[in-house]
Amino acid sequence: MRIALVGVGLIGGSIGLAARERLGAAVAGYDPAPEALREGLARGALDVACADPAAALTGAAAAFVAAPVAALPDAVQGALSAAGPDCVVSDVGSTKRAIVATTADPRFIGGHPLAGAESAGVQNARAGLFEGATWYLTPTPATQGTLYERLHRLLVDLGARPSALDPDTHDRLMASISHLPHVLANTLVGQASGLLSEHAERLPATGPSFRDATRVAGASTAIWRDIYLANADALGAAIDDAIARLRAVRAALDAGDADAIAAWNDGAREDRRRLLEAHLAGGPVTELRVPVPNRPGVIAEVALALGRGGVNIVDMALYPAPDRSEGTVALWIAGASEARRAEQLLAGLGLPVARA
Amino acid sequence: MRIALVGVGLIGGSIGLAARERLGAAVAGYDPAPEALREGLARGALDVACADPAAALTGAAAAFVAAPVAALPDAVQGALSAAGPDCVVSDVGSTKRAIVATTADPRFIGGHPLAGAESAGVQNARAGLFEGATWYLTPTPATQGTLYERLHRLLVDLGARPSALDPDTHDRLMASISHLPHVLANTLVGQASGLLSEHAERLPATGPSFRDATRVAGASTAIWRDIYLANADALGAAIDDAIARLRAVRAALDAGDADAIAAWNDGAREDRRRLLEAHLAGGPVTELRVPVPNRPGVIAEVALALGRGGVNIVDMALYPAPDRSEGTVALWIAGASEARRAEQLLAGLGLPVARA
Repeated sequence: MRIALVGVGLIGGSIGLAARERLGAAVAGYDPAPEALREGLARGALDVACADPAAALTGAAAAFVAAPVAALPDAVQGALSAAGPDCVVSDVGSTKRAIVATTADPRFIGGHPLAGAESAGVQNARAGLFEGATWYLTPTPATQGTLYERLHRLLVDLGARPSALDPDTHDRLMASISHLPHVLANTLVGQASGLLSEHAERLPATGPSFRDATRVAGASTAIWRDIYLANADALGAAIDDAIARLRAVRAALDAGDADAIAAWNDGAREDRRRLLEAHLAGGPVTELRVPVPNRPGVIAEVALALGRGGVNIVDMALYPAPDRSEGTVALWIAGASEARRAEQLLAGLGLPVARA
Repeated sequence: MRIALVGVGLIGGSIGLAARERLGAAVAGYDPAPEALREGLARGALDVACADPAAALTGAAAAFVAAPVAALPDAVQGALSAAGPDCVVSDVGSTKRAIVATTADPRFIGGHPLAGAESAGVQNARAGLFEGATWYLTPTPATQGTLYERLHRLLVDLGARPSALDPDTHDRLMASISHLPHVLANTLVGQASGLLSEHAERLPATGPSFRDATRVAGASTAIWRDIYLANADALGAAIDDAIARLRAVRAALDAGDADAIAAWNDGAREDRRRLLEAHLAGGPVTELRVPVPNRPGVIAEVALALGRGGVNIVDMALYPAPDRSEGTVALWIAGASEARRAEQLLAGLGLPVARA
């Protein structure tokens, strides 16, 4: 099978690596940046580097357009023009309505792998990037069934879990679980930065709640500007919903309504638990808090002890004390028996453990 | 010196441990929960467990009321009634205007240590809890100078960094950098949980941006309900400011104003950098992203390698891949030379490193 990549960055490069390693596919790639092509060849993500998209598409059974969101309409149109009648063309953009609306070609299927947000560029590509990752596909009534089946099977072979969704639902989901968190993080740092100007000498080292809430603030503008704009209406609706929720909290605060505030906060705890548990096979998630001295290797000891004991750490966060002399490690463990095992292992290290 | 604790939980217990260890103080404690007193004695946080606050206050040179925010007015009044004429009485509540407004007693000074948010209860108390921590004090014109000096010195001896602030500024700061992040986290999980009900089979494992933004969602209602209510107006103003910022983003999205969105996002990145750097001695903070296989011990190796190499990890976050077979570790390193050293050490482990 010959696979074409239009765009050889983190996603395109990882598709290339996985397709060559796992499917024995021949991968031809085009990228406007010559260094991306050189690196793609050097890393084994490509068999052939092509001077234009049409050359990459020649003879391809499947093509992935892995370009920035704003460049997708032209790039997808170009790929469809160059693709043969039996070539499935997909993209990997973070929003789907806009690109799906540009074509009724039966060979095009919108796609969006939920992977690779951490670092950009083909130099970070890896064959395992999509292992277990949800990969949304947005077929339409015009989509040719045999091509959909081919794409689905190809994604499974890359390690992903394809999931069909209409473009509208896709964009609304992403607005709430990905785009809105970025907007709120930006909002928080903007407000706090204003305080920094006002009270420079008084702003304390910001605590864990602030750090956690703002980790994604100011993510790459080159990528996020276009995501925000391409999903402007769904994100706008999510923002409106957030504003309505904030207004409700504000009204309860104004009224001094302790019961309403308590119910709202209890509801949030329950919501978070449901979300954490919804997609974790191991069962209920337990949050353990472990105060640790900040000597070299203590995090290592914790991780090693749990790893040797077969306990899977779903998520972790380190909260250093202000002077960094010590801190607290939060560990999220899936499964009740694993959580108990983790507590025993940590106690065996002489560390006190609390359930959060 | 004799020190009285009214409330023997995480904060009260840690004051007791530090005061006994570092100052050789005699610590008398009262708590409405008998098990807290037993545990406080057993852990060495107390010399004497008292049956009522007045007994604990007898002969004390300083008293700390470490009760929940809603219980503070009565508890502080009780402590002032029992305290001698030369005893300084302070509290450790997370909001300051409400409690400061309840008394003009020259012996009372409001206080708020920025420590201990991670885990509650005297069983988690430790002598080093306040090491390097900002400890806000809110003296008023009525405050007796000699008592303020005594309290300040005592806090320094406990390892803290006392910082005087008027109660109004304190509560506005906390509204923006602590209370609002909790409100936004609750907002996000509420919205996403609604999607879970609507699209149960389609909601993907939530990504790192969502997990980071919602880690503090639904924090202990027993503590947070009262914090929200005690700071209702400052938090309300912070919510209004957030709403105004959200409206501005929404307007730019509606207008399809790419320049405005880009400027807003660039500004957020700059804001975050300023905030991270504002209180870290090591200089500019570099964020490194390291893809790692999820075999036992790999996080340990990373932490050990950096620890042995003398590199201080300011903050870290683990982003597991959907199937947990691998992941990416984000490391925040203070200081340009330390960041370069970290890159070398990680390369020495055969791990690819990217700057975020």
